[in-house]
Amino acid sequence: MLFQVQITIKIPQGVDKVEVEKLSAAEIEQVKQLQRDGRWLHIWRVAGKWANISILDLQGPDELHQIISSLPLFPYMEVDVIPLSRHPAAL
Amino acid sequence: MLFQVQITIKIPQGVDKVEVEKLSAAEIEQVKQLQRDGRWLHIWRVAGKWANISILDLQGPDELHQIISSLPLFPYMEVDVIPLSRHPAAL
Amino acid sequence: MLFQVQITIKIPQGVDKVEVEKLSAAEIEQVKQLQRDGRWLHIWRVAGKWANISILDLQGPDELHQIISSLPLFPYMEVDVIPLSRHPAAL
Amino acid sequence: MLFQVQITIKIPQGVDKVEVEKLSAAEIEQVKQLQRDGRWLHIWRVAGKWANISILDLQGPDELHQIISSLPLFPYMEVDVIPLSRHPAAL
Amino acid sequence: MLFQVQITIKIPQGVDKVEVEKLSAAEIEQVKQLQRDGRWLHIWRVAGKWANISILDLQGPDELHQIISSLPLFPYMEVDVIPLSRHPAAL
Amino acid sequence: MLFQVQITIKIPQGVDKVEVEKLSAAEIEQVKQLQRDGRWLHIWRVAGKWANISILDLQGPDELHQIISSLPLFPYMEVDVIPLSRHPAAL
Amino acid sequence: MLFQVQITIKIPQGVDKVEVEKLSAAEIEQVKQLQRDGRWLHIWRVAGKWANISILDLQGPDELHQIISSLPLFPYMEVDVIPLSRHPAAL
Amino acid sequence: MLFQVQITIKIPQGVDKVEVEKLSAAEIEQVKQLQRDGRWLHIWRVAGKWANISILDLQGPDELHQIISSLPLFPYMEVDVIPLSRHPAAL
Amino acid sequence: MLFQVQITIKIPQGVDKVEVEKLSAAEIEQVKQLQRDGRWLHIWRVAGKWANISILDLQGPDELHQIISSLPLFPYMEVDVIPLSRHPAAL
Amino acid sequence: MLFQVQITIKIPQGVDKVEVEKLSAAEIEQVKQLQRDGRWLHIWRVAGKWANISILDLQGPDELHQIISSLPLFPYMEVDVIPLSRHPAAL
Repeated sequence: MLFQVQITIKIPQGVDKVEVEKLSAAEIEQVKQLQRDGRWLHIWRVAGKWANISILDLQGPDELHQIISSLPLFPYMEVDVIPLSRHPAAL
Repeated sequence: MLFQVQITIKIPQGVDKVEVEKLSAAEIEQVKQLQRDGRWLHIWRVAGKWANISILDLQGPDELHQIISSLPLFPYMEVDVIPLSRHPAAL
Repeated sequence: MLFQVQITIKIPQGVDKVEVEKLSAAEIEQVKQLQRDGRWLHIWRVAGKWANISILDLQGPDELHQIISSLPLFPYMEVDVIPLSRHPAAL
Repeated sequence: MLFQVQITIKIPQGVDKVEVEKLSAAEIEQVKQLQRDGRWLHIWRVAGKWANISILDLQGPDELHQIISSLPLFPYMEVDVIPLSRHPAAL
Repeated sequence: MLFQVQITIKIPQGVDKVEVEKLSAAEIEQVKQLQRDGRWLHIWRVAGKWANISILDLQGPDELHQIISSLPLFPYMEVDVIPLSRHPAAL
Repeated sequence: MLFQVQITIKIPQGVDKVEVEKLSAAEIEQVKQLQRDGRWLHIWRVAGKWANISILDLQGPDELHQIISSLPLFPYMEVDVIPLSRHPAAL
Repeated sequence: MLFQVQITIKIPQGVDKVEVEKLSAAEIEQVKQLQRDGRWLHIWRVAGKWANISILDLQGPDELHQIISSLPLFPYMEVDVIPLSRHPAAL
Repeated sequence: MLFQVQITIKIPQGVDKVEVEKLSAAEIEQVKQLQRDGRWLHIWRVAGKWANISILDLQGPDELHQIISSLPLFPYMEVDVIPLSRHPAAL
Repeated sequence: MLFQVQITIKIPQGVDKVEVEKLSAAEIEQVKQLQRDGRWLHIWRVAGKWANISILDLQGPDELHQIISSLPLFPYMEVDVIPLSRHPAAL
Repeated sequence: MLFQVQITIKIPQGVDKVEVEKLSAAEIEQVKQLQRDGRWLHIWRVAGKWANISILDLQGPDELHQIISSLPLFPYMEVDVIPLSRHPAAL
């Protein structure tokens, strides 16, 4: 089951930069692993912003919440979720 | 070069329904052809709405405008375009 | 799998009132049947508006889109969908 | 009398994390007790966000305000309230 | 139980003006009667707009919906409802 | 002359809680005095929020600004003002 | 007592153009007369739009509503009103 | 003096298509002439929309309003104007 | 050439109050001087807010930016600028 | 390939002012170099704000993201990107 997830990162003033870099590196590893698992299908950078648009293929909203909320930068994310269904024009 | 395009269809009162169905069928054929050409990579239905989220792989904004503006339902579309770049977490 | 669906009805000027009443009556029957099927769990009126908030328990976004887009008043609906997951405070 | 309450938690930079966890645990207990009392009917997690959608069955706005404003995380909440009435399609 | 209701009237092009005046006159009578009943406490004009802000004292959201949706101009209304509770600074 | 004033309080992280309670208590006294003076006609709590909706009867915008800006919590307020006039349906 | 009024004109499809020109000419005369009366202090065109920003000096919201709602193009107006008070930096 | 002008065209249902094409062709000629005059410096299509972003070099807001409001499609335009000044990073 | 400028002041938590008062007093002097110069025509307080609406008569956007950005409270301002042109109803 | 980029700078409370000036000076040099390279075609100040509107001519969204995200003030930017295509009225 597919979901589009748009994630924007906003780091508030006062957060340690080294900590942010560590979280960011860990997040990249976690997202790569989820791609290898076949659960995180696509991730693109929104050009010009610290933001991404992703497509996830999951068992449902419970798994979606578990995955997103366990991302290392989750406390600094704005997240928008759109459930996707098959389009009649899709080959 | 990748673009996310979100398209919402709003048919105003007074448009002939048969005409809309013809335009809609023609649009599906056009989008299928663009998928076969490798230019329209993905199209998903936004669940619950007459709307879609698509990923296109094009030569640039000129080709994007030419493709979107020649879709049969273009006069009834709200269109949002987001240019996408490679994400460091993408495999 | 649970989804919250918020539906607002806006009938444009020029739509026949008798037709709207027929569609509305058919919609009520359809929603009642979906409740009996165990797929439409709750429906509440947003007090003061021609709008409702509903909770559906479905197999996924495909079934959601099929159900919402086949409602008789779908052409006149604004629809917002929120995928729901289990909350740790739920008994 | 039914109210839908949508609650989003935003913890500002500088709030102690241990304190937040304590408040969060206390809040879960409080919400569970209100469910046992029959006053907090449903609570769902908005998938992908630190947010919930709840349905409360209360005597009126005074009780609603008393309950919401005494939740431990109230100082960090954005709250939207929608009064609900019976829908003609509800079984 | 108190609710603030903000109502804005938008008449679409094509609605007969004489009909609007009749509906408007009937609405004024209906609101006056509800004031005499002690259910519609206050009604003020939003200066410069075809809009009003009202305070109603009702048994709950069901009565609120029944009253608002039976106003003659209801099909042309945008309605916002805010449930009110007692304020500690109120005498 | 009547004004509706909607006030929402947002206390930023780092403000001393004891100080906020002192300001809040002083504000309640000040609003009570203005009610006794016949200038602050009504104050209601927006159920579920640290916010109120009030009706003031004043000589004009100068007095309105003088009263609102001298409230103890003014630095933490979002304020919306709507000038009200007599409604033809008011008894 | 001063009010800023921002007025935007939106003529829906189907309104007779000659009628709009007549209403528009009548409105200009009415606004000129109100300037001569000393009640409409300033009127400026928002450059690039069919909109104006005006400053009126009136007895209160009742007179404001009477003046704005009797303008010939009132049915096609979006109106925003801001009550103004004396600024400490004003000479 | 520079202004950025963003123009979006929205043709309501019921406007004659041949008429729109005539207005559109006339508008293109008018904009080309203003470019030759050195007053309309740049015009770009917003990719995917019937909209443009333009830079005009004019004597002031009066000339801006005169030019924009005399464009043939002005009745169907949404217009946003941003006055521009020299940037310290500009060569 | 006329511009309407709407300025809202938002002082973040942590800024020294004495410093703000000094900046505020300096700003008042600066605005008074600009009024004496004939460049700042009007300044009004938005009743109930720390905000003002002003009309400036300047040589163009460069002078506008130079004046606004040199105001002592500029770092804490939200600024909206609307270029104004002559209105046909102005005497 | 052309992109319009609108950048607004918001410096949070607590950032060192000397550091901001250093970043700002470095940014100006970087933008000047990109202009000399023919990649940053135009940069204008939005009059009255710490914001700019720019036109970049780049190979695509990847280069756009690389350039914008390496600007010294990127952590404090709000960025909006609009892909531009050729307009039929452009000479």
